[in-house]
Amino acid sequence: MSHFIAQPKQGVPFVSVQAMAKLINKVGIENVLLELTQRLEHDFARWDEFDKSPRYAAHSPDGVIELMPVSDGKMFSCKYVNGHPKNTFKELQTVAAFGILSDVDSGYPVMISEMCLLTALRTAATSALVAKYLAPKHSTTLTLIGNGAQSEFQALAFKAVLGITHIRLYDIDKNASQKAFNNLSNCGLNVTICNSAKEAVQGAHIITTCTADKKNATILTSDMIPQGVHLNAIGGDCPGKTELDSQLLTRANVFVEYEPQTRIEGEIQQMSDTFAVTEFHKVINKQTPGRTSNNELTIFDGVGFASEDFTALVYIKDALVAAGEFELLDLITQQADPRNLFSVLNTEQSNKSVSQEQVA
Amino acid sequence: MSHFIAQPKQGVPFVSVQAMAKLINKVGIENVLLELTQRLEHDFARWDEFDKSPRYAAHSPDGVIELMPVSDGKMFSCKYVNGHPKNTFKELQTVAAFGILSDVDSGYPVMISEMCLLTALRTAATSALVAKYLAPKHSTTLTLIGNGAQSEFQALAFKAVLGITHIRLYDIDKNASQKAFNNLSNCGLNVTICNSAKEAVQGAHIITTCTADKKNATILTSDMIPQGVHLNAIGGDCPGKTELDSQLLTRANVFVEYEPQTRIEGEIQQMSDTFAVTEFHKVINKQTPGRTSNNELTIFDGVGFASEDFTALVYIKDALVAAGEFELLDLITQQADPRNLFSVLNTEQSNKSVSQEQVA
Repeated sequence: MSHFIAQPKQGVPFVSVQAMAKLINKVGIENVLLELTQRLEHDFARWDEFDKSPRYAAHSPDGVIELMPVSDGKMFSCKYVNGHPKNTFKELQTVAAFGILSDVDSGYPVMISEMCLLTALRTAATSALVAKYLAPKHSTTLTLIGNGAQSEFQALAFKAVLGITHIRLYDIDKNASQKAFNNLSNCGLNVTICNSAKEAVQGAHIITTCTADKKNATILTSDMIPQGVHLNAIGGDCPGKTELDSQLLTRANVFVEYEPQTRIEGEIQQMSDTFAVTEFHKVINKQTPGRTSNNELTIFDGVGFASEDFTALVYIKDALVAAGEFELLDLITQQADPRNLFSVLNTEQSNKSVSQEQVA
Repeated sequence: MSHFIAQPKQGVPFVSVQAMAKLINKVGIENVLLELTQRLEHDFARWDEFDKSPRYAAHSPDGVIELMPVSDGKMFSCKYVNGHPKNTFKELQTVAAFGILSDVDSGYPVMISEMCLLTALRTAATSALVAKYLAPKHSTTLTLIGNGAQSEFQALAFKAVLGITHIRLYDIDKNASQKAFNNLSNCGLNVTICNSAKEAVQGAHIITTCTADKKNATILTSDMIPQGVHLNAIGGDCPGKTELDSQLLTRANVFVEYEPQTRIEGEIQQMSDTFAVTEFHKVINKQTPGRTSNNELTIFDGVGFASEDFTALVYIKDALVAAGEFELLDLITQQADPRNLFSVLNTEQSNKSVSQEQVA
């Protein structure tokens, strides 16, 4: 930690996609998801310490570019993230993200990281954390509706955190389900591909909806879902993009991350402003009960909040320090006299932007 | 241009501090400032095309961390920038900044760049552009009050754009003036160090105030400034940080970049909400006159607006393409099937984050 904060003049620690993949593989993805869930639990418990605001969103015909800043007074984080469903047809990511972590006292960035992988991890860990409090006890079967980029991370987070053993897959595109099946079959999970959403939800204790279309869709209708299950609805995450039949919301106890943002972006954008929801941190802090009976339908209307990215970035920073090795990016000028910025032009060296740092 | 937009899968073009210094030296700093001023003039003229908002600011006891997003519907830019005056005492930059430029259609970042140097360049070029419209004709003498990181860039921008030949320096810290003197003496300018602000403003056609203290200071009092000069007041740029006697503002015609932001951050935070100011783009677009007589006192209450960073980032992107050589950052995952994010973990390669790209 002290290395990052105390010696910003050496450069900005950088986590590339390959470095992130290497780190995840080294720790083990299920361990990462489990540790991240613990960190999220800790940070949701200190919810009031975060300086929160709904994210900044620049909408365009094909998508949205968002900035998600948050601070706990000591560290500041911001994620840049887009959402462009049609990117899939250009062989580009629907969601391309990266993040920055800064030291509030100096304003200096202390880490820049890819967040394509990290967003998938934190989204899955958040889903698992919420389900830990809201899903029926002894849940073993998870249904995944929408088998895109997030699905394997969901499956493994629920396995690591809740002990899920059975996965039921459904996607309107069979190839997506086959892809998830192939990836998950070697992970110690019993995986089934289903032919419809209705078939997929049979026997499920937990259902994750995570589809990508930017429209008001009805992936699940009310008649398909019995009481007693936990719905993890994470695909509806921007204005005009929802997945659930509003009747389902009416039947359920609905939990959200940060109410002002979810009213704009979540499933509850379909409902009136007075539709009752519960912020999840209140469940962790025992200010309100979570699931109260086996017969209750619970819904997590997850849209992704900046504090989750904060938690994930701090976790990765600590993991990097523990690993004792990271790259440094030549992003901030480092002249001896801060006022002599002009001197940087006279001391231009060989064009070396990333160096490898070995930490004692 | 097409290379950046059409092939995001190769990585994100990255401009390190050293790459920026190399580029500036290759083009020549005065050419860069001149070209950047022309680009700013072009972009201020199409002011209405930009999607504008006051910047996001996270204030802390010692400083502020800001995000400055803006879009023209085709490109999106965001600068991360801090302002921590006390950093100087830790041998850190008062202002450490970097920026991102994105393609609105795909949401993909097309460039990430250092902006310590680039912010200094764009601030100086903006000052020079505004003075081109507001300063007295045939101005030859520029006074710089506050001789920190920005001062040499100011001097050279006014030389390149307005033909300034004489520079008068004053700073409460003599070492800062000596530093600026040493840097500027070989640049074809006649440079004088002065013992007081009052002495420094003698004979000046243009006066730049650019001091760093985060407080309501009075660097210039009304009695020191005759009619007929142009005051380029750029140091007052956050709540609680001003440089000018309010009487000076009352005597002058005051021009601003983006009124909603300047009301919060600029010199005019001292004045009532109804104090009249003119947005500078109206002068460029001939919707309002600039300087109307030799006897007029004009003040540019400059705080720095996101569109200036946008202009600067697009300029650097084009310069990179022209140079035909840039680095690529491994920041966004690039798997063949966008939905198969999980596969990135299985195809982890050697940990190479920056590659060099040669463009045909």
